[in-house]
Amino acid sequence: MITSKDNPQLKTIRRLHDKRHREREGLVVAEGEDLVDAARGAGFEPELLLVAGQDVEPALLDSVSALGSGTRVIAVFRQRWSEPGGELSAYLHGVGDPGNVGAIVRSAHALADGPVVLGPDCADPWSPRAVRASMGSVFARPPARAAFDELAGTTVGLVPRDAPSLADVEPTAPVVACLGSERAGLPDDVLARCSVRVSIPLRPGGAESLNVAMAAAVALYELNRIVGHA
Amino acid sequence: MITSKDNPQLKTIRRLHDKRHREREGLVVAEGEDLVDAARGAGFEPELLLVAGQDVEPALLDSVSALGSGTRVIAVFRQRWSEPGGELSAYLHGVGDPGNVGAIVRSAHALADGPVVLGPDCADPWSPRAVRASMGSVFARPPARAAFDELAGTTVGLVPRDAPSLADVEPTAPVVACLGSERAGLPDDVLARCSVRVSIPLRPGGAESLNVAMAAAVALYELNRIVGHA
Repeated sequence: MITSKDNPQLKTIRRLHDKRHREREGLVVAEGEDLVDAARGAGFEPELLLVAGQDVEPALLDSVSALGSGTRVIAVFRQRWSEPGGELSAYLHGVGDPGNVGAIVRSAHALADGPVVLGPDCADPWSPRAVRASMGSVFARPPARAAFDELAGTTVGLVPRDAPSLADVEPTAPVVACLGSERAGLPDDVLARCSVRVSIPLRPGGAESLNVAMAAAVALYELNRIVGHA
Repeated sequence: MITSKDNPQLKTIRRLHDKRHREREGLVVAEGEDLVDAARGAGFEPELLLVAGQDVEPALLDSVSALGSGTRVIAVFRQRWSEPGGELSAYLHGVGDPGNVGAIVRSAHALADGPVVLGPDCADPWSPRAVRASMGSVFARPPARAAFDELAGTTVGLVPRDAPSLADVEPTAPVVACLGSERAGLPDDVLARCSVRVSIPLRPGGAESLNVAMAAAVALYELNRIVGHA
């Protein structure tokens, strides 16, 4: 039973709150039974597994939690990455909010057969907030990393307005839904290289845009229908 | 220039971090220029407006921020509530995460003409996290409060599976998309009273559900098309 905050396993977990350490060591922390079960269910073997009251004093486990108190289990796993692919996937460019990245990983796992492909300036999908927002999908369908030019198939660039409706395009599979940052959208040079540009029709006079994770869910829902699986 | 943390205006802002005080006083705090501008643009007059370096020492304004440091302006407004209505709106039952409630308020403002109607056990839409997630839409399209039985029109209940596809229904306007809590969905007694039950088609073997805010965005997108405005 771990009873000291200086225990090296606790230090490892604490260090992994820092993105640089996660990247350097290629590790990810899963907090809570649901996420730990999701990782193990996807074939991840824990490098480290601490159960409150069994391996470690509950208050000490809480003290290394990134997500709050009452954590009953924390595990460390080795990150895995996918290759881009699938009939339908998503490419993100500059999506910096970890909650949005995690939510899009979950939506892609529900609505597409390919991974979320992370381009430049995206939040770390292995951060505690992203892992939690993914509800474990980051383990079941690990994200990929690639530049836009490495994508194969029909790239569908989402823009807030002034483009044909998402529902009116008929892209040929494989299809990649491409989404940019919350504030700036996709950079012009990426948009110019997209096979097609589309907008989600919004009501006139209402909000000028959707949150990027909502736009991704809508795009993947519609493209999943068009690609022919729903 | 406010230079004391005991200043009564700062105390008011601090008190409004607490949901009970917000409800009792009917007030909401907007942090940051974007949200303050959104409120004023929607016709809200500030009860209190503090600009860092002008009305208050920047560090003191930071100290009453609920959302982090670097806040340049904080304003207090009186809450407004809508009545249920519109050709298309959303009803939430037990959606307890303020980020989800705020995101759905934004999506409804973009994709529907009616408000988000809050049933029992929903997060406060006037909480700092909900206001921020709404990106100001909570001011432009204030939410409503009502019980399910007060809704008029076709109520479309979203369930995770075992129902006709969302795209295959043709509900008569007015339409209300009804969504339940992240874990439990809509309670059985509410589902039984929905005019129709639908599911968003998900890929077999993938994530078992979408985040409730994603499901709301997809439902409002599709129903907006069906109701005939996109």
